[in-house]
Amino acid sequence: MPCAASMSPISTKPPSGTRDFFPEQLAVREHVIDRFAATFRTHGFARLDSPALERIEVLSGKYGDEGEGLIFKILKRGAGEATGEADLALRYDLTVPLARIANEYQARLGREFRRYQVGPVWRAERPGRGRFREFFQCDIDVVGVDDRLADAEVIVCVVEALRSVGLSGFRVSLNSRAVLTGLLEAYDVPADLASGTLVALDKFDKIGAEGVRGELAERGLADRVTGALVDDLTSPDAAHVARERLSANETGTAGLREVDTVLRASTAALGEGVVAFNPLLARGLAYYTGPIFEASVDDVPGSIAGGGRYDNLLGIFGNRAIPATGGSIGLERILLALQERDEQRYQTTPVLVTVWSDDARFESFAIAQDIRRAGIACEIALSGGKIGKQLSRANERGFKLAVLVGPDELAAGAAAVKDLRTGEQTRVPRAELPKSIAALLDGPVVNSAGRS
Amino acid sequence: MPCAASMSPISTKPPSGTRDFFPEQLAVREHVIDRFAATFRTHGFARLDSPALERIEVLSGKYGDEGEGLIFKILKRGAGEATGEADLALRYDLTVPLARIANEYQARLGREFRRYQVGPVWRAERPGRGRFREFFQCDIDVVGVDDRLADAEVIVCVVEALRSVGLSGFRVSLNSRAVLTGLLEAYDVPADLASGTLVALDKFDKIGAEGVRGELAERGLADRVTGALVDDLTSPDAAHVARERLSANETGTAGLREVDTVLRASTAALGEGVVAFNPLLARGLAYYTGPIFEASVDDVPGSIAGGGRYDNLLGIFGNRAIPATGGSIGLERILLALQERDEQRYQTTPVLVTVWSDDARFESFAIAQDIRRAGIACEIALSGGKIGKQLSRANERGFKLAVLVGPDELAAGAAAVKDLRTGEQTRVPRAELPKSIAALLDGPVVNSAGRS
Repeated sequence: MPCAASMSPISTKPPSGTRDFFPEQLAVREHVIDRFAATFRTHGFARLDSPALERIEVLSGKYGDEGEGLIFKILKRGAGEATGEADLALRYDLTVPLARIANEYQARLGREFRRYQVGPVWRAERPGRGRFREFFQCDIDVVGVDDRLADAEVIVCVVEALRSVGLSGFRVSLNSRAVLTGLLEAYDVPADLASGTLVALDKFDKIGAEGVRGELAERGLADRVTGALVDDLTSPDAAHVARERLSANETGTAGLREVDTVLRASTAALGEGVVAFNPLLARGLAYYTGPIFEASVDDVPGSIAGGGRYDNLLGIFGNRAIPATGGSIGLERILLALQERDEQRYQTTPVLVTVWSDDARFESFAIAQDIRRAGIACEIALSGGKIGKQLSRANERGFKLAVLVGPDELAAGAAAVKDLRTGEQTRVPRAELPKSIAALLDGPVVNSAGRS
Repeated sequence: MPCAASMSPISTKPPSGTRDFFPEQLAVREHVIDRFAATFRTHGFARLDSPALERIEVLSGKYGDEGEGLIFKILKRGAGEATGEADLALRYDLTVPLARIANEYQARLGREFRRYQVGPVWRAERPGRGRFREFFQCDIDVVGVDDRLADAEVIVCVVEALRSVGLSGFRVSLNSRAVLTGLLEAYDVPADLASGTLVALDKFDKIGAEGVRGELAERGLADRVTGALVDDLTSPDAAHVARERLSANETGTAGLREVDTVLRASTAALGEGVVAFNPLLARGLAYYTGPIFEASVDDVPGSIAGGGRYDNLLGIFGNRAIPATGGSIGLERILLALQERDEQRYQTTPVLVTVWSDDARFESFAIAQDIRRAGIACEIALSGGKIGKQLSRANERGFKLAVLVGPDELAAGAAAVKDLRTGEQTRVPRAELPKSIAALLDGPVVNSAGRS
């Protein structure tokens, strides 16, 4: 229970990299999250949730040196506070918590499960344009299934989720770790240059063939290798050339097989032309072990979803391997793209019940409740004041209708409804008020775009 | 991006006082929060949200010594980490963030606004039965309105929210700070014993008249005063006796006036018998300045919602007073009470599309997508295996229907639907599959009780 403190010039902005949210923004967020969740459930995924806090040893050593420095750590309490030590931390992603959960609840969750989770994670990155320290992640995962059909199922579900919020022009790039390994072998890339080569190739969309060539030279790849690699894999025909090259390579052949399984299954569900093999896709390979994908849509630059198979991660807290494949949707990027379009549709409270006089003000409460019980959002002019002033303020604040109950209406068991959009005023019997209002508003309305 | 770490016997339980949530629990949580939010919106409240993180100086000095020790503080990052100092903290409630927001966005929010917020807060309390370190608060507040009608509006909205999730037997106790001050004056309680006396009186429901008498004696209140006070205020007629006593006292009369305003307005909306004056209600008065209330319902012991007017709190970050009144619903207590009842209604994914053979498995993806696009949740038997085994696992996991497409069905452009509840199997043309399934399931179904 807060108690008043001395006045001081404390900044009342939210902390750097975090945000306060207003109703019209939250309506869009709720709408998108609701649609995503409904799509996930339709595809057989069930919601699991983990706390914001994790024991520090659960997160430590999982994100590399750079990630480690970005974890928000929580000071011990009480006597421990003076030690300056941390025992807890804010979750950095939703995947390490999933590994913890997969180990802790094996019996309850069963050998196979499909889960989704949508919620905030925290990273102490330098905040920038569209980059936050507290932001939502949105993940789906199929746990315990080795078959590559599961990888296809994740892609299908991600695309359908994007479709559910009105995005269009889906393009999914598909590749696999084995394909990349096979290509490096087939083109004679030395092992010590392998990961650097993949990083450079992955940038083709951004820096073009010449950029990739330059970066590979810088990294010390022989000109002969660079030439063949870049010429083949950045050509419009890259997928076919890669297929030919890989057919002579065992790892590559296995990679193509899993790519084709995912391609056929996802295409059976989504139709032709959505998912395509892209031998250049690399996605910072650190923990991926099988198929990988990235999705893009019209109207949003770059990729807005991605994922892949990561068979070695979920087992880290136990002594058994747990195959898993998943996808993550870039919720914040999508919200940025949809915000402008959807905030327009935000519906503020449509009805104001005015307060005629001190005597009639209790009556206003009874009237308001009748209207609300019919599913129509309304506000009471709690501050009272002259009716003319109440009406002009109602106009300013964008109410559509105002309800007035003066002495005449009170005596007649009636109420007046003023349409603030037209200025027209009609008297209706009290019992018919909710119905009349609903008709004027074209059906029940609450103050949110979130539930349409 | 996590990378594999060495295996170690790290506990995979969630941190003490926090929880992992399973689908059937989350369905109940979502359902209750959705209903509450819909009720709040219908009453003209709009959602505002603040980050989990606050600057430490925003929270410091707001919760008293005891509260201060329960704040989760966040270590500085980078070079600052070694200092052991904290610069951020996890929010401790939703009220101090509201004070920050009310100061920061004065122009955008206007002189008056109604907000609701539902979300987690963190307190390092010793976890116990039904007590958590990460738990949801659910607050509504009317900001900027001095009129006591606003206090009534908060009570009305809280009661309607409780009603919206099927609770019943609402009883709201109403009192005011001025009434309590007036009573202490009227009964000659010395100023230095005032707050202790209120704490003791507030316990009447728990420890009875004798308990209160004992505690007041212990606190040093004169026997004569204790006798009159306890006899009068714990009698069944307490409200009337208090009214008489207060009528001779200026502060008390003002208190009764505001109590009666709230009583009449809330009763006009909610009907007789819900809200009643209770001169004993005290609610740890630290920051309340006007009317206060507590609500209880059948089936849940103790109070499950409460609030009051706190005109001196929201201005702490600026140099102007901001009148405010609000209510808080004990979401976690309500969820505990509803969990058992509502988890039963949780609906798992009803349909499993089996995978007949390696050839037919891609066809299963097309079939599943037809079913999902009709709004019916279904899963694909991604792990494959013998059909008999797929069906027996489907039975174990509680699917209602299984879809089978063998070579005969494939050739005939048909699919078989097996009702796992009855064992009956019927063949239907592919194009009619979603319709047939919907009929067998009695309409579209997704795996959640959250959206009914």
